[in-house]
Parts: sequence; C-alpha cells; structure tokens
Amino acid sequence: MLASVNASKNSAASLICTVDVVLLTLRERQLELLLLQREREPFAGAWALPGGYVHPQEDQDCEDAARRVLQHKLGLASPYLEQLASFSGPARDPRGWSVSVAYVALVPPPSGPLPLGQWRAVDRLPQLPFDHGRIVATALERVRNKSQYSSLPLHLCGEAFTLPELQAVYETLMGEPINPVSFRRKMDELGTLEPIPGAKRADGPHRPAQLFRRKAGREQGLGLLGRVINSG
Amino acid sequence: MLASVNASKNSAASLICTVDVVLLTLRERQLELLLLQREREPFAGAWALPGGYVHPQEDQDCEDAARRVLQHKLGLASPYLEQLASFSGPARDPRGWSVSVAYVALVPPPSGPLPLGQWRAVDRLPQLPFDHGRIVATALERVRNKSQYSSLPLHLCGEAFTLPELQAVYETLMGEPINPVSFRRKMDELGTLEPIPGAKRADGPHRPAQLFRRKAGREQGLGLLGRVINSG
Repeated sequence: MLASVNASKNSAASLICTVDVVLLTLRERQLELLLLQREREPFAGAWALPGGYVHPQEDQDCEDAARRVLQHKLGLASPYLEQLASFSGPARDPRGWSVSVAYVALVPPPSGPLPLGQWRAVDRLPQLPFDHGRIVATALERVRNKSQYSSLPLHLCGEAFTLPELQAVYETLMGEPINPVSFRRKMDELGTLEPIPGAKRADGPHRPAQLFRRKAGREQGLGLLGRVINSG
Repeated sequence: MLASVNASKNSAASLICTVDVVLLTLRERQLELLLLQREREPFAGAWALPGGYVHPQEDQDCEDAARRVLQHKLGLASPYLEQLASFSGPARDPRGWSVSVAYVALVPPPSGPLPLGQWRAVDRLPQLPFDHGRIVATALERVRNKSQYSSLPLHLCGEAFTLPELQAVYETLMGEPINPVSFRRKMDELGTLEPIPGAKRADGPHRPAQLFRRKAGREQGLGLLGRVINSG
C-alpha cells in the first residue's frame, strides 16, 4: 500500500493537465463551433478545439485557464462558460497520461471574423485530433438537452431580440418546432426576460415585434423550468 | 507566447491530479455519506471523502481511478458512479496546484459496516478538509436535482423493492411528499422497472405489496422524464 502511494506521488508528476473549450454560436438556424489550427505538435496543422495547458502560476482554477485561453487566443472577454466534464486517460494525448477539463462557451453571432480560428457548422466538422470529437459530441448533447428546460439558449442571442427570434434559436437547438403560445408561457415562467421599453424590430411582412433583453443581474446564471419546453 | 508555452510545460509537471468520491446511501429516510479517516498529511486524522492520486500506470481514466479507490479502500466492486465535476486551484490542497475530478457513487443501504470508514448523515457532517465541503454540496445538489426527472434514486435501492419504498426514497431526496398516483405514472413513463413475478412484501397493516426490480440491461444507465416528478 505504501509502495503504491509512493509510486503514485512520483507518477503524478508526469500527468498533463489541460483545458479545452467548445465555443458555440448560432447563425441562420445553424449551430457553429470554433476551431483553431494547431501551431505545434502533436497534430500541428490540424483544426482543433481552442485549449491549452493549465498555468499554475497564473490560473486560479481550470475555469480561469479556459477564460485565459479564450481571451489570449480569440480575444473573447467574458462569454457564458460552464464546465462540461473531464476527459482523461493514457491514449487521448500522445504526450502522455492527460486530463482535460472541458468547457462549453456560448456567444452571440459574431459581427465579424475572429482574429484566429474558423467557425464550422457542427454537422460538417472535419476529423478532430485527440478526443475532441467525443468532447464536441458531449457538449452538443449537453447544450441541446439543457435547452429543453433552461434559459441557456439566451446566451446565443445578442443584447436585444424578439421572441420569434429567440424561439428560432430554441427550435434549432431542439431540432423541432415549438408552439408559439407555449413558448411565450415558458419564457414567462423562466422570468429571465424583460421587454425593452419602446424598442421594436420589423420582421418581414409582420408588424414590428417587441424587443426583449435579459433582466439586469440575470446575465450569467440560468433560469430553469420544471417541465421541458415541448411538453407544454 | 513561446516562453509562456515553455513555462506551462514545465509547470504542468507540478500539478497534482486526484479523484474524490461522494459515496451516498439512504437509510430510514436519511441520506448518508461515507467518510474515511485520513492516514497521512495533509489533514492526517481528519474525516474526508474517499479519494487519491490518479495512477497513470494502472488507471485507464479518472473514472477508473475512482473505481479503484472504492474497490481498494472500501471493497466496493461496482457501485453506480457518475462524474460530478472538477475542482481545481492553488489553494484547495496544501501540497500545491491541484485538480480533483469528483464522482458521485450511489449504493443500496449496506447490510453491515464497511471495513473502513463511517456513514454520516449528510445534514450532520463534520468540518471537512480540502474543499470537500464544497464537493459534497455540489453532489447533493446534483443528486436532488436529478431525482426530479430521472431514475437515479433507483441506485439507492436494493435488488427488490415495493413502489411505496421507492417513493419514500424519492421523497427523501426531493424533501417533499409526492402524490402516489402521479408517482406510479412517472415510474411507468421511465420504463426502467418491472414487477418480480409472484414476489410480494408485507408492509405493516397493508396487504402485501408487489416487489419490483430494475429491468435487465437497465442496471447502469438512467431513465429520464420529460417533466419533473412533482409537477404531475
């Protein structure tokens, strides 16, 4: 037992600890994922999730490391971020036994290209290195599932949006149409939205629709529903 | 940028990677947690979550490490186990910057004491070392929340149980009474239970109640509901 403990203390030093971020946005009813081209081995030149080593000297925790990666590599200051899961083992990284703490980040549709990286439709991704394909699959399942009962999709919207626009975001994530009356009731129940006084947006041939925003103080957390949206 | 990468490669070697397990059972309408007395510094003598270093030579991933800890330290072969979250940072472990991948494990009420460790009611826990108090709080929130819409509580039951017994488990986790008719409907909807042919159990003055078990092949996964149980 003692020998085993000592061995583990020594071998603990050889572990690799990284963070990876599944950064998502939604444009024209298409969920998109940001990929960065790797500069170094392993997999130099491959398109992969943004990520990197944890820096113990500067990171307060793994979330802090993920935010640093998004800030330094992509110039993103404070996207919505939540921990997804850890992925680990001897084979996922050719450099050795590794643990990656993976995060999901959501941003509104970017107004222009990011300094680095490419947005790719999540259903037309290239082969990804490491176990990034598995991380992406886990992230998409989480986001789609959580969209059924929470305000998570709000983080894919800009500062102001109409209810039909928001409904389209939910529908894209859930992959099926939602009854508009039921949708409005669910948004009321969530309690995270408020109308912007006097602000409307014309939407095709219809009369201008009221613009909404997240309530002050509700920018980061999630509202949760007691029932999934489609069951209403 | 290059300097930063090199620094991180060096410093990655000084990270500590551990697993911790929140092992829960439920007895007499009381959720209980297993604590082990620590043999070594830091916090020698303190009661803490079962856990330990990842062993890269033998563990296939962090879940494998958690199962090894439960097997070696507690003699538990294959409890229900799910990843909870990672907890990390410079201050949570006095030995240095650390990442702990935490798991929740559920077991039926043990028939006897474990070789090591003590079961403690979750609402009467001692002060715990490291950030184990935070890990426990996160685990309890996860288990209580997930009980509202899944078959998770089944893993706290033995191989055979009556519906009233199972309902009592759900009620303890959710902290409120459930309508029995609604509860039966939800269990039907989950589809994870089947009656044991000819098996009944007497329950006080009532007529003997049908015994149920998990369906073959449904021992590990979770059934999920579209609505939380109490909303029915």
